[in-house]
Amino acid sequence: MLSKTQVKYIQSLSHKKFRDEESVFIAEGPKIVSEILAERPSAVRHIYAVNEWLELNKSLVKNINGDKITSVTPAELERVSHLTTPNNVLAVVNKLDIIEDIDCLEQLVIALDGLQDPGNLGTIIRMADWFGVKHILCSMDCADVYNPKVVQSTMGSILRVNMVYTDLDKFLVKQNGIEIMAATLDGIPVQKVTGGANGVLLIGNESKGINKLLLAKATKKITIPSLGKAESLNAAVATGIILSHLVLQ
Amino acid sequence: MLSKTQVKYIQSLSHKKFRDEESVFIAEGPKIVSEILAERPSAVRHIYAVNEWLELNKSLVKNINGDKITSVTPAELERVSHLTTPNNVLAVVNKLDIIEDIDCLEQLVIALDGLQDPGNLGTIIRMADWFGVKHILCSMDCADVYNPKVVQSTMGSILRVNMVYTDLDKFLVKQNGIEIMAATLDGIPVQKVTGGANGVLLIGNESKGINKLLLAKATKKITIPSLGKAESLNAAVATGIILSHLVLQ
Repeated sequence: MLSKTQVKYIQSLSHKKFRDEESVFIAEGPKIVSEILAERPSAVRHIYAVNEWLELNKSLVKNINGDKITSVTPAELERVSHLTTPNNVLAVVNKLDIIEDIDCLEQLVIALDGLQDPGNLGTIIRMADWFGVKHILCSMDCADVYNPKVVQSTMGSILRVNMVYTDLDKFLVKQNGIEIMAATLDGIPVQKVTGGANGVLLIGNESKGINKLLLAKATKKITIPSLGKAESLNAAVATGIILSHLVLQ
Repeated sequence: MLSKTQVKYIQSLSHKKFRDEESVFIAEGPKIVSEILAERPSAVRHIYAVNEWLELNKSLVKNINGDKITSVTPAELERVSHLTTPNNVLAVVNKLDIIEDIDCLEQLVIALDGLQDPGNLGTIIRMADWFGVKHILCSMDCADVYNPKVVQSTMGSILRVNMVYTDLDKFLVKQNGIEIMAATLDGIPVQKVTGGANGVLLIGNESKGINKLLLAKATKKITIPSLGKAESLNAAVATGIILSHLVLQ
Protein backbone atom coordinates (compact mmCIF):
# COMPACT_ATOMS: atom_id res chain seq x y z
CA MET A 1 0.00 0.00 0.00
CA LEU A 2 1.10 3.53 -0.76
CA SER A 3 1.68 5.83 2.23
CA LYS A 4 0.77 9.52 2.07
CA THR A 5 4.48 10.34 2.27
CA GLN A 6 5.21 8.13 -0.73
CA VAL A 7 2.40 9.72 -2.74
CA LYS A 8 3.71 13.19 -1.92
CA TYR A 9 7.27 12.20 -2.72
CA ILE A 10 6.46 10.71 -6.14
CA GLN A 11 4.23 13.63 -7.05
CA SER A 12 6.97 16.08 -6.08
CA LEU A 13 9.24 14.47 -8.68
CA SER A 14 7.20 15.97 -11.48
CA HIS A 15 9.10 19.16 -10.60
CA LYS A 16 12.67 19.56 -11.82
CA LYS A 17 13.69 21.19 -8.53
CA PHE A 18 12.87 18.07 -6.52
CA ARG A 19 14.32 15.71 -9.12
CA ASP A 20 17.57 17.68 -8.94
CA GLU A 21 17.61 17.75 -5.13
CA GLU A 22 17.07 13.99 -4.95
CA SER A 23 19.07 13.23 -8.09
CA VAL A 24 16.38 10.81 -9.29
CA PHE A 25 13.79 10.51 -12.02
CA ILE A 26 10.64 8.53 -12.65
CA ALA A 27 10.45 5.72 -15.18
CA GLU A 28 7.04 4.28 -15.98
CA GLY A 29 5.77 1.22 -17.79
CA PRO A 30 7.05 -2.35 -18.11
CA LYS A 31 9.43 -1.72 -21.01
CA ILE A 32 11.73 0.90 -19.54
CA VAL A 33 11.52 -0.48 -15.99
CA SER A 34 12.51 -3.95 -17.21
CA GLU A 35 15.47 -2.50 -19.08
CA ILE A 36 16.62 -0.60 -16.00
CA LEU A 37 16.26 -3.68 -13.79
CA ALA A 38 18.22 -5.78 -16.28
CA GLU A 39 20.99 -3.32 -17.02
CA ARG A 40 21.28 -1.03 -14.02
CA PRO A 41 19.59 -2.68 -11.03
CA SER A 42 21.70 -0.70 -8.57
CA ALA A 43 20.18 2.55 -9.90
CA VAL A 44 16.70 1.54 -8.75
CA ARG A 45 15.62 3.41 -5.61
CA HIS A 46 12.07 2.10 -5.44
CA ILE A 47 9.56 0.15 -7.46
CA TYR A 48 5.80 0.62 -7.23
CA ALA A 49 3.98 -2.10 -9.13
CA VAL A 50 0.70 -3.95 -9.31
CA ASN A 51 0.82 -7.56 -8.06
CA GLU A 52 0.32 -9.00 -11.50
CA TRP A 53 3.49 -7.30 -12.76
CA LEU A 54 5.48 -8.35 -9.68
CA GLU A 55 4.40 -11.97 -10.17
CA LEU A 56 5.38 -11.94 -13.85
CA ASN A 57 8.76 -10.31 -13.18
CA LYS A 58 9.97 -12.25 -10.15
CA SER A 59 13.31 -13.03 -11.76
CA LEU A 60 13.90 -9.37 -12.62
CA VAL A 61 13.22 -8.08 -9.11
CA LYS A 62 14.83 -10.96 -7.20
CA ASN A 63 18.00 -8.96 -6.50
CA ILE A 64 16.13 -5.85 -5.40
CA ASN A 65 15.84 -5.46 -1.65
CA GLY A 66 12.24 -6.02 -0.48
CA ASP A 67 12.23 -2.61 1.23
CA LYS A 68 12.49 -1.08 -2.18
CA ILE A 69 9.38 -2.73 -3.60
CA THR A 70 5.83 -1.59 -2.90
CA SER A 71 2.87 -3.48 -4.23
CA VAL A 72 0.13 -1.06 -5.25
CA THR A 73 -3.42 -1.25 -6.56
CA PRO A 74 -4.21 0.11 -10.05
CA ALA A 75 -6.07 2.97 -8.34
CA GLU A 76 -3.01 3.86 -6.25
CA LEU A 77 -0.77 3.74 -9.31
CA GLU A 78 -3.14 6.07 -11.10
CA ARG A 79 -2.81 8.56 -8.26
CA VAL A 80 0.93 8.94 -8.74
CA SER A 81 1.33 8.17 -12.44
CA HIS A 82 2.27 10.83 -14.99
CA LEU A 83 0.77 8.79 -17.80
CA THR A 84 -2.77 9.23 -19.09
CA THR A 85 -2.98 5.42 -19.00
CA PRO A 86 -0.88 4.13 -16.06
CA ASN A 87 0.95 0.97 -17.00
CA ASN A 88 1.48 -1.50 -14.13
CA VAL A 89 4.79 -0.25 -12.80
CA LEU A 90 6.55 2.97 -11.83
CA ALA A 91 10.14 3.20 -10.65
CA VAL A 92 12.10 5.93 -8.90
CA VAL A 93 15.57 5.68 -10.38
CA ASN A 94 18.92 7.37 -9.79
CA LYS A 95 19.82 9.80 -12.54
CA LEU A 96 22.17 8.35 -15.14
CA ASP A 97 25.91 8.91 -15.14
CA ILE A 98 27.13 11.59 -17.52
CA ILE A 99 30.19 11.41 -19.76
CA GLU A 100 31.38 15.02 -20.07
CA ASP A 101 34.43 14.42 -22.22
CA ILE A 102 33.15 13.86 -25.73
CA ASP A 103 35.19 13.38 -28.88
CA CYS A 104 33.51 15.15 -31.80
CA LEU A 105 36.20 14.30 -34.37
CA GLU A 106 35.36 10.68 -34.90
CA GLN A 107 31.60 10.61 -34.43
CA LEU A 108 28.45 12.65 -34.91
CA VAL A 109 27.18 14.50 -31.83
CA ILE A 110 23.87 16.40 -31.69
CA ALA A 111 23.80 19.81 -29.95
CA LEU A 112 20.42 21.32 -29.05
CA ASP A 113 20.20 25.06 -28.48
CA GLY A 114 17.17 25.97 -26.38
CA LEU A 115 14.96 23.10 -27.48
CA GLN A 116 11.89 23.63 -25.31
CA ASP A 117 9.32 21.00 -26.12
CA PRO A 118 9.59 17.81 -24.01
CA GLY A 119 8.01 15.69 -26.76
CA ASN A 120 10.53 16.96 -29.32
CA LEU A 121 13.43 16.28 -26.96
CA GLY A 122 12.27 12.73 -26.27
CA THR A 123 11.73 12.05 -29.96
CA ILE A 124 15.23 13.34 -30.78
CA ILE A 125 16.80 11.07 -28.12
CA ARG A 126 14.93 8.11 -29.59
CA MET A 127 16.09 8.87 -33.14
CA ALA A 128 19.67 9.45 -31.94
CA ASP A 129 19.54 5.94 -30.49
CA TRP A 130 18.13 4.65 -33.80
CA PHE A 131 20.95 6.19 -35.83
CA GLY A 132 23.69 5.24 -33.37
CA VAL A 133 24.36 8.77 -32.09
CA LYS A 134 25.74 8.30 -28.58
CA HIS A 135 25.88 11.85 -27.20
CA ILE A 136 23.52 14.82 -27.17
CA LEU A 137 24.64 18.20 -25.89
CA CYS A 138 21.89 20.47 -24.52
CA SER A 139 22.14 24.16 -23.73
CA MET A 140 21.10 24.89 -20.15
CA ASP A 141 17.72 26.24 -21.30
CA CYS A 142 16.65 23.04 -23.07
CA ALA A 143 13.77 21.01 -21.64
CA ASP A 144 14.90 18.70 -18.83
CA VAL A 145 15.68 15.19 -20.00
CA TYR A 146 14.14 13.83 -16.77
CA ASN A 147 10.80 15.54 -17.37
CA PRO A 148 8.35 12.60 -17.32
CA LYS A 149 7.11 13.49 -20.82
CA VAL A 150 10.65 13.34 -22.17
CA VAL A 151 11.42 10.05 -20.42
CA GLN A 152 8.20 8.61 -21.85
CA SER A 153 8.74 9.74 -25.42
CA THR A 154 12.30 8.34 -25.54
CA MET A 155 10.75 4.84 -25.32
CA GLY A 156 13.74 3.61 -23.29
CA SER A 157 16.42 5.29 -25.42
CA ILE A 158 17.17 7.63 -22.51
CA LEU A 159 19.19 4.73 -21.07
CA ARG A 160 21.48 4.57 -24.09
CA VAL A 161 22.11 8.19 -25.10
CA ASN A 162 24.50 10.31 -23.02
CA MET A 163 22.82 13.67 -22.30
CA VAL A 164 25.15 16.54 -21.37
CA TYR A 165 23.71 19.89 -20.25
CA THR A 166 26.37 22.50 -20.81
CA ASP A 167 27.23 25.95 -22.11
CA LEU A 168 27.34 25.07 -25.82
CA ASP A 169 29.45 28.10 -26.69
CA LYS A 170 32.16 27.19 -24.18
CA PHE A 171 32.03 23.57 -25.27
CA LEU A 172 32.52 24.44 -28.94
CA VAL A 173 35.36 26.87 -28.21
CA LYS A 174 37.31 24.03 -26.65
CA GLN A 175 36.99 21.80 -29.72
CA ASN A 176 39.67 22.01 -32.36
CA GLY A 177 39.15 21.35 -36.03
CA ILE A 178 35.72 19.81 -35.77
CA GLU A 179 32.92 20.24 -38.28
CA ILE A 180 30.04 22.27 -36.83
CA MET A 181 26.91 21.79 -38.92
CA ALA A 182 24.03 24.18 -38.27
CA ALA A 183 20.45 23.52 -39.35
CA THR A 184 19.37 26.85 -40.90
CA LEU A 185 17.15 28.21 -43.67
CA ASP A 186 20.02 29.43 -45.88
CA GLY A 187 22.42 26.50 -46.12
CA ILE A 188 23.40 23.70 -48.47
CA PRO A 189 20.42 21.50 -49.47
CA VAL A 190 20.55 18.53 -47.12
CA GLN A 191 20.59 15.97 -49.96
CA LYS A 192 23.79 17.54 -51.32
CA VAL A 193 25.80 17.51 -48.10
CA THR A 194 28.84 15.30 -48.41
CA GLY A 195 31.84 14.63 -46.23
CA GLY A 196 30.59 12.05 -43.81
CA ALA A 197 28.98 12.32 -40.46
CA ASN A 198 31.58 13.44 -37.95
CA GLY A 199 31.26 16.60 -35.90
CA VAL A 200 28.45 18.47 -34.21
CA LEU A 201 24.96 18.89 -35.65
CA LEU A 202 23.52 22.08 -34.18
CA ILE A 203 19.72 22.35 -33.87
CA GLY A 204 17.99 25.53 -32.71
CA ASN A 205 15.01 26.51 -30.63
CA GLU A 206 11.56 25.75 -32.12
CA SER A 207 10.76 29.38 -32.88
CA LYS A 208 13.99 31.36 -32.48
CA GLY A 209 16.42 29.01 -34.19
CA ILE A 210 20.10 28.90 -33.24
CA ASN A 211 21.54 31.82 -31.28
CA LYS A 212 23.96 34.11 -33.12
CA LEU A 213 27.05 33.32 -31.07
CA LEU A 214 26.74 29.64 -31.83
CA LEU A 215 25.75 30.18 -35.44
CA ALA A 216 28.93 32.18 -36.00
CA LYS A 217 30.90 29.04 -35.13
CA ALA A 218 29.24 26.90 -37.81
CA THR A 219 31.57 25.49 -40.45
CA LYS A 220 28.64 24.31 -42.57
CA LYS A 221 25.01 25.33 -42.84
CA ILE A 222 22.42 22.74 -43.83
CA THR A 223 18.88 23.39 -45.11
CA ILE A 224 15.93 21.14 -45.83
CA PRO A 225 14.60 22.60 -49.09
CA SER A 226 10.93 23.54 -49.09
CA LEU A 227 8.81 22.59 -52.08
CA GLY A 228 5.52 23.77 -50.58
CA LYS A 229 4.06 26.50 -48.42
CA ALA A 230 4.54 25.51 -44.76
CA GLU A 231 6.67 28.09 -42.94
CA SER A 232 8.65 25.56 -40.94
CA LEU A 233 9.06 21.94 -39.98
CA ASN A 234 8.66 20.44 -36.52
CA ALA A 235 12.10 20.55 -34.82
CA ALA A 236 12.25 16.80 -34.18
CA VAL A 237 11.26 16.01 -37.76
CA ALA A 238 13.86 18.43 -39.13
CA THR A 239 16.53 16.84 -36.92
CA GLY A 240 15.54 13.38 -38.10
CA ILE A 241 15.67 14.35 -41.76
CA ILE A 242 19.12 15.97 -41.51
CA LEU A 243 20.46 13.13 -39.37
CA SER A 244 19.26 10.54 -41.87
CA HIS A 245 20.94 12.31 -44.77
CA LEU A 246 24.20 12.65 -42.81
CA VAL A 247 24.50 9.10 -41.51
CA LEU A 248 22.91 7.18 -44.40
CA GLN A 249 25.34 8.00 -47.19
CA MET B 1 -19.78 38.56 -23.99
CA LEU B 2 -20.09 34.81 -24.26
CA SER B 3 -23.52 33.29 -23.63
CA LYS B 4 -23.89 29.96 -21.85
CA THR B 5 -25.18 28.47 -25.10
CA GLN B 6 -22.08 29.64 -26.94
CA VAL B 7 -19.79 28.19 -24.28
CA LYS B 8 -21.60 24.86 -24.44
CA TYR B 9 -21.55 24.86 -28.24
CA ILE B 10 -17.82 25.55 -28.52
CA GLN B 11 -16.99 23.01 -25.85
CA SER B 12 -19.10 20.37 -27.59
CA LEU B 13 -16.90 20.77 -30.68
CA SER B 14 -14.04 19.05 -28.91
CA HIS B 15 -16.01 15.86 -29.70
CA LYS B 16 -15.86 14.44 -33.22
CA LYS B 17 -19.56 13.55 -33.08
CA PHE B 18 -20.61 17.18 -32.73
CA ARG B 19 -18.04 18.43 -35.24
CA ASP B 20 -19.45 15.96 -37.75
CA GLU B 21 -23.06 16.88 -37.01
CA GLU B 22 -22.32 20.58 -37.45
CA SER B 23 -19.71 20.07 -40.16
CA VAL B 24 -17.41 22.61 -38.50
CA PHE B 25 -14.10 22.71 -36.66
CA ILE B 26 -12.29 25.06 -34.33
CA ALA B 27 -9.27 27.09 -35.39
CA GLU B 28 -7.34 28.93 -32.69
CA GLY B 29 -4.67 31.61 -32.65
CA PRO B 30 -3.98 34.64 -34.86
CA LYS B 31 -1.96 32.81 -37.53
CA ILE B 32 -4.48 30.25 -38.72
CA VAL B 33 -7.51 32.51 -38.17
CA SER B 34 -5.90 35.27 -40.26
CA GLU B 35 -5.17 32.80 -43.04
CA ILE B 36 -8.77 31.57 -43.02
CA LEU B 37 -10.13 35.12 -43.05
CA ALA B 38 -7.86 36.06 -45.93
CA GLU B 39 -8.36 32.98 -48.06
CA ARG B 40 -11.76 31.53 -47.14
CA PRO B 41 -13.80 34.22 -45.38
CA SER B 42 -17.08 32.56 -46.37
CA ALA B 43 -16.09 29.45 -44.36
CA VAL B 44 -16.10 31.42 -41.11
CA ARG B 45 -19.17 30.68 -38.97
CA HIS B 46 -18.16 32.70 -35.93
CA ILE B 47 -15.20 34.53 -34.47
CA TYR B 48 -14.56 34.91 -30.75
CA ALA B 49 -11.75 37.36 -30.11
CA VAL B 50 -10.37 39.74 -27.54
CA ASN B 51 -10.83 43.43 -28.33
CA GLU B 52 -7.16 44.01 -28.95
CA TRP B 53 -7.13 41.43 -31.73
CA LEU B 54 -10.33 42.81 -33.27
CA GLU B 55 -8.84 46.31 -33.30
CA LEU B 56 -5.63 45.13 -34.95
CA ASN B 57 -7.47 43.09 -37.57
CA LYS B 58 -10.25 45.46 -38.63
CA SER B 59 -9.42 45.07 -42.30
CA LEU B 60 -9.50 41.28 -42.08
CA VAL B 61 -12.91 41.12 -40.40
CA LYS B 62 -14.53 44.00 -42.30
CA ASN B 63 -16.41 41.64 -44.63
CA ILE B 64 -17.61 39.38 -41.82
CA ASN B 65 -21.18 40.04 -40.71
CA GLY B 66 -21.24 41.60 -37.22
CA ASP B 67 -23.54 38.84 -35.98
CA LYS B 68 -20.69 36.44 -36.52
CA ILE B 69 -18.22 38.26 -34.29
CA THR B 70 -18.22 38.11 -30.50
CA SER B 71 -15.81 40.16 -28.44
CA VAL B 72 -14.64 38.15 -25.44
CA THR B 73 -12.45 38.73 -22.40
CA PRO B 74 -9.24 36.71 -22.00
CA ALA B 75 -10.97 34.83 -19.16
CA GLU B 76 -13.90 33.93 -21.40
CA LEU B 77 -11.56 32.78 -24.15
CA GLU B 78 -9.73 30.60 -21.65
CA ARG B 79 -13.01 28.91 -20.75
CA VAL B 80 -13.59 27.68 -24.29
CA SER B 81 -10.03 27.36 -25.60
CA HIS B 82 -8.41 23.99 -26.29
CA LEU B 83 -4.94 25.50 -25.96
CA THR B 84 -2.92 25.50 -22.76
CA THR B 85 -2.16 29.14 -23.53
CA PRO B 86 -5.21 30.68 -25.27
CA ASN B 87 -4.17 33.04 -28.01
CA ASN B 88 -6.51 36.02 -28.60
CA VAL B 89 -8.86 34.49 -31.12
CA LEU B 90 -10.89 31.35 -31.76
CA ALA B 91 -12.96 30.71 -34.85
CA VAL B 92 -15.68 28.18 -35.64
CA VAL B 93 -15.11 27.32 -39.28
CA ASN B 94 -16.87 25.19 -41.90
CA LYS B 95 -14.99 21.99 -42.65
CA LEU B 96 -12.82 22.21 -45.76
CA ASP B 97 -13.90 20.91 -49.16
CA ILE B 98 -12.50 17.52 -50.07
CA ILE B 99 -11.13 16.48 -53.45
CA GLU B 100 -11.87 12.75 -53.69
CA ASP B 101 -10.49 12.12 -57.16
CA ILE B 102 -6.73 12.01 -56.78
CA ASP B 103 -4.19 11.23 -59.46
CA CYS B 104 -1.35 9.13 -58.01
CA LEU B 105 0.56 8.71 -61.27
CA GLU B 106 2.04 12.17 -61.53
CA GLN B 107 2.55 13.12 -57.92
CA LEU B 108 3.38 11.71 -54.49
CA VAL B 109 0.42 11.04 -52.20
CA ILE B 110 0.74 9.95 -48.56
CA ALA B 111 -1.58 7.21 -47.26
CA LEU B 112 -1.89 6.71 -43.50
CA ASP B 113 -3.14 3.38 -42.22
CA GLY B 114 -4.55 3.68 -38.70
CA LEU B 115 -2.36 6.57 -37.57
CA GLN B 116 -3.74 7.25 -34.09
CA ASP B 117 -1.78 10.06 -32.50
CA PRO B 118 -3.20 13.55 -33.18
CA GLY B 119 0.24 15.16 -32.77
CA ASN B 120 1.76 12.80 -35.32
CA LEU B 121 -1.06 13.45 -37.78
CA GLY B 122 -0.70 17.22 -37.46
CA THR B 123 3.06 17.01 -37.87
CA ILE B 124 2.69 14.86 -41.00
CA ILE B 125 0.24 17.37 -42.54
CA ARG B 126 2.73 20.16 -41.82
CA MET B 127 5.62 18.28 -43.44
CA ALA B 128 3.45 17.32 -46.43
CA ASP B 129 2.84 21.04 -46.93
CA TRP B 130 6.61 21.69 -46.59
CA PHE B 131 7.47 19.13 -49.26
CA GLY B 132 4.65 20.09 -51.61
CA VAL B 133 2.56 16.94 -51.07
CA LYS B 134 -1.01 18.03 -51.81
CA HIS B 135 -3.08 15.01 -50.75
CA ILE B 136 -3.12 12.69 -47.73
CA LEU B 137 -5.31 9.61 -47.68
CA CYS B 138 -6.36 8.39 -44.22
CA SER B 139 -7.94 5.04 -43.34
CA MET B 140 -11.20 5.50 -41.48
CA ASP B 141 -9.55 4.62 -38.13
CA CYS B 142 -6.95 7.40 -38.30
CA ALA B 143 -7.14 10.29 -35.82
CA ASP B 144 -9.63 12.96 -36.92
CA VAL B 145 -8.00 15.83 -38.82
CA TYR B 146 -10.37 18.26 -37.07
CA ASN B 147 -9.32 17.18 -33.58
CA PRO B 148 -8.13 20.47 -32.02
CA LYS B 149 -4.67 18.97 -31.32
CA VAL B 150 -4.28 18.03 -34.98
CA VAL B 151 -5.45 21.43 -36.21
CA GLN B 152 -3.00 23.09 -33.82
CA SER B 153 0.02 20.99 -34.74
CA THR B 154 -0.49 21.54 -38.49
CA MET B 155 0.40 25.22 -37.90
CA GLY B 156 -2.01 26.29 -40.64
CA SER B 157 -1.01 23.62 -43.16
CA ILE B 158 -4.44 22.00 -42.69
CA LEU B 159 -5.73 24.71 -45.06
CA ARG B 160 -3.41 23.58 -47.85
CA VAL B 161 -3.37 19.78 -47.73
CA ASN B 162 -6.38 17.83 -49.01
CA MET B 163 -7.31 15.17 -46.42
CA VAL B 164 -9.38 12.25 -47.68
CA TYR B 165 -10.75 9.66 -45.24
CA THR B 166 -11.43 6.52 -47.20
CA ASP B 167 -11.13 2.75 -47.36
CA LEU B 168 -7.48 2.58 -48.44
CA ASP B 169 -7.82 -0.92 -49.81
CA LYS B 170 -10.68 0.03 -52.10
CA PHE B 171 -8.87 3.19 -53.13
CA LEU B 172 -5.71 1.32 -54.10
CA VAL B 173 -7.62 -1.38 -55.99
CA LYS B 174 -9.00 1.31 -58.28
CA GLN B 175 -5.56 2.68 -59.17
CA ASN B 176 -3.79 1.24 -62.18
CA GLY B 177 -0.05 1.02 -62.59
CA ILE B 178 0.90 3.26 -59.67
CA GLU B 179 3.90 2.77 -57.43
CA ILE B 180 2.82 1.82 -53.87
CA MET B 181 5.70 2.35 -51.46
CA ALA B 182 5.32 0.88 -47.99
CA ALA B 183 7.40 1.94 -44.99
CA THR B 184 8.44 -1.38 -43.41
CA LEU B 185 11.33 -2.93 -41.51
CA ASP B 186 12.45 -5.23 -44.34
CA GLY B 187 12.67 -3.05 -47.43
CA ILE B 188 15.22 -1.19 -49.52
CA PRO B 189 17.37 1.23 -47.49
CA VAL B 190 15.73 4.63 -47.90
CA GLN B 191 18.91 6.29 -49.18
CA LYS B 192 19.07 3.80 -52.06
CA VAL B 193 15.52 4.25 -53.33
CA THR B 194 15.49 5.63 -56.85
CA GLY B 195 12.79 6.21 -59.41
CA GLY B 196 11.37 9.54 -58.42
CA ALA B 197 8.56 10.50 -56.17
CA ASN B 198 5.30 9.55 -57.83
CA GLY B 199 2.82 7.15 -56.32
CA VAL B 200 1.53 6.40 -52.85
CA LEU B 201 3.69 6.36 -49.71
CA LEU B 202 2.00 4.02 -47.25
CA ILE B 203 2.63 4.62 -43.52
CA GLY B 204 1.33 2.28 -40.83
CA ASN B 205 -0.09 2.51 -37.35
CA GLU B 206 2.35 3.55 -34.58
CA SER B 207 2.53 0.08 -33.03
CA LYS B 208 0.93 -2.34 -35.48
CA GLY B 209 2.42 -1.06 -38.74
CA ILE B 210 0.60 -1.47 -42.06
CA ASN B 211 -2.22 -4.01 -42.28
CA LYS B 212 -1.56 -7.14 -44.34
CA LEU B 213 -4.14 -6.50 -47.06
CA LEU B 214 -2.57 -3.15 -47.86
CA LEU B 215 0.98 -4.39 -47.51
CA ALA B 216 0.28 -7.08 -50.10
CA LYS B 217 -0.38 -4.32 -52.60
CA ALA B 218 3.01 -2.64 -52.12
CA THR B 219 5.20 -2.47 -55.21
CA LYS B 220 8.20 -1.32 -53.18
CA LYS B 221 9.16 -1.60 -49.51
CA ILE B 222 11.28 1.10 -47.94
CA THR B 223 13.25 0.90 -44.67
CA ILE B 224 15.15 3.44 -42.60
CA PRO B 225 18.26 1.49 -41.61
CA SER B 226 19.01 1.36 -37.91
CA LEU B 227 22.56 1.93 -36.72
CA GLY B 228 21.73 1.86 -33.02
CA LYS B 229 19.49 0.16 -30.50
CA ALA B 230 16.12 1.93 -30.50
CA GLU B 231 13.34 -0.44 -31.48
CA SER B 232 11.47 2.05 -33.60
CA LEU B 233 11.21 5.63 -34.75
CA ASN B 234 8.34 8.01 -34.08
CA ALA B 235 5.84 7.65 -36.96
CA ALA B 236 5.95 11.32 -37.96
CA VAL B 237 9.76 11.34 -37.93
CA ALA B 238 9.89 8.17 -40.03
CA THR B 239 7.45 9.68 -42.53
CA GLY B 240 9.54 12.86 -42.71
CA ILE B 241 12.77 10.95 -43.32
CA ILE B 242 11.32 8.80 -46.10
CA LEU B 243 9.53 11.74 -47.68
CA SER B 244 12.73 13.79 -47.72
CA HIS B 245 14.69 11.01 -49.43
CA LEU B 246 11.93 10.55 -52.02
CA VAL B 247 11.36 14.17 -52.96
CA LEU B 248 14.88 15.57 -52.55
CA GLN B 249 16.75 13.58 -55.18
